[in-house]
Amino acid sequence: MTSESPRFSRIRIVLVAPSHPGNIGAAARAMSTMGLGTLVLVAPKRFPDPEATALASGATAVLETARVVATLEEAIAGCVLTVGLSARPRAFAGRVLPVRAAASEAIAHATHGDVALVFGTEMSGLSNDELARCGIVATIPASPGYASLNLAAAVQVAAYELRMAAVGGDVWRAPRFKPATADEIGKLYAHASRTLVAMRFLDPRMPKRLLPRLKRLFGRAGLEKEEVNILRGILARIDQFVGREGSG
Amino acid sequence: MTSESPRFSRIRIVLVAPSHPGNIGAAARAMSTMGLGTLVLVAPKRFPDPEATALASGATAVLETARVVATLEEAIAGCVLTVGLSARPRAFAGRVLPVRAAASEAIAHATHGDVALVFGTEMSGLSNDELARCGIVATIPASPGYASLNLAAAVQVAAYELRMAAVGGDVWRAPRFKPATADEIGKLYAHASRTLVAMRFLDPRMPKRLLPRLKRLFGRAGLEKEEVNILRGILARIDQFVGREGSG
Repeated sequence: MTSESPRFSRIRIVLVAPSHPGNIGAAARAMSTMGLGTLVLVAPKRFPDPEATALASGATAVLETARVVATLEEAIAGCVLTVGLSARPRAFAGRVLPVRAAASEAIAHATHGDVALVFGTEMSGLSNDELARCGIVATIPASPGYASLNLAAAVQVAAYELRMAAVGGDVWRAPRFKPATADEIGKLYAHASRTLVAMRFLDPRMPKRLLPRLKRLFGRAGLEKEEVNILRGILARIDQFVGREGSG
Repeated sequence: MTSESPRFSRIRIVLVAPSHPGNIGAAARAMSTMGLGTLVLVAPKRFPDPEATALASGATAVLETARVVATLEEAIAGCVLTVGLSARPRAFAGRVLPVRAAASEAIAHATHGDVALVFGTEMSGLSNDELARCGIVATIPASPGYASLNLAAAVQVAAYELRMAAVGGDVWRAPRFKPATADEIGKLYAHASRTLVAMRFLDPRMPKRLLPRLKRLFGRAGLEKEEVNILRGILARIDQFVGREGSG
């Protein structure tokens, strides 16, 4: 398990009393995809379990190094910040933040020490007592009509936001080719204009908005040198046909 | 299926040739949690299927209204923007954006017409030809060490970003109680100062940084009226003990 951001090794995912080993495995996979490696399980119903291993789909390192503890207290020992996930409003919550803002605080705190993100049981989430141990409550936005996120799906969204906060969203970029220069583009437009006039598609005495619209289109795209060459090649070929017709 | 944002009904999720019906069901659940209701399946291996229904976990409306088509072309017909998800760099991609920025463009386009988010097969994603039909390529950030997001997990992250872009992240907020006024807080500090002096914890001739530190702590928390009453109650009780000792 490589963790590209040093702050990532300071972040632990805590699952409180998960009922289904499959969810533990899927959560481990979700963590791995975002580069998180530290999993703590509080009193899991069944673990280790072949179903957890199957659902982890290769992210077994997280399961193998997972720590099983008896209480939430042990799971969050040593943490400078504990973030509890909860979909359900509570009367005495102190700070409640959308998961994006909570992830950003978690990453900021991870420069000072360990940080825990705590997820409750599948059926009922974290209890009030458990949530009272969390400095921040994080919420994942969901449809009021169907707010039932799978446990691993919630871990996936939180882990994604942690990664976005720590290392950003760039994965790969569109390839960059050599851009055309202003004078190359100017010559292309001049050529296009001559050809369109020769084709009798553009009337030079009543040009209307044709050229501005074409320039707008190609301007938005941002022309590359190679593309200007291709377009001028097409124009030159058209010129042959138009010239032949004219001379025919 | 209620869709709280009118732009949400304009967004369709397209799964190209999904192999596992379980993934279709889990994707439907992921969509539902974020309020998305329109699913299009291009040549699914098995659908409908009891495994899809089981994994949808109640989000069956999405499966029941899912449209099955033979080609990607049919799936994206009528769309003013098609966003293709891809983890793999391509030599001729036009615009490549992190999923957050792509979701924001998708929501912006949904005011003009239909928008499709297209996901490829589990094993290999979208082909170059399929991706060439997409105006934007969206990438989900992932760990270089283990970038294998489950299909439904990818749908979950994209649907989450669509919801964030359309309706924001607020779910529930910390309850607000009546805040204390400046003079109530001033009287609390004066009371605390008197008590601390009487307790001989604070030396009025050498006060050091005690009161500033306490004020900083309570200032950060933002005191409520009820809390000021509780703290003054505790101080008054301490005063009784300190006074008794003095008079004893």
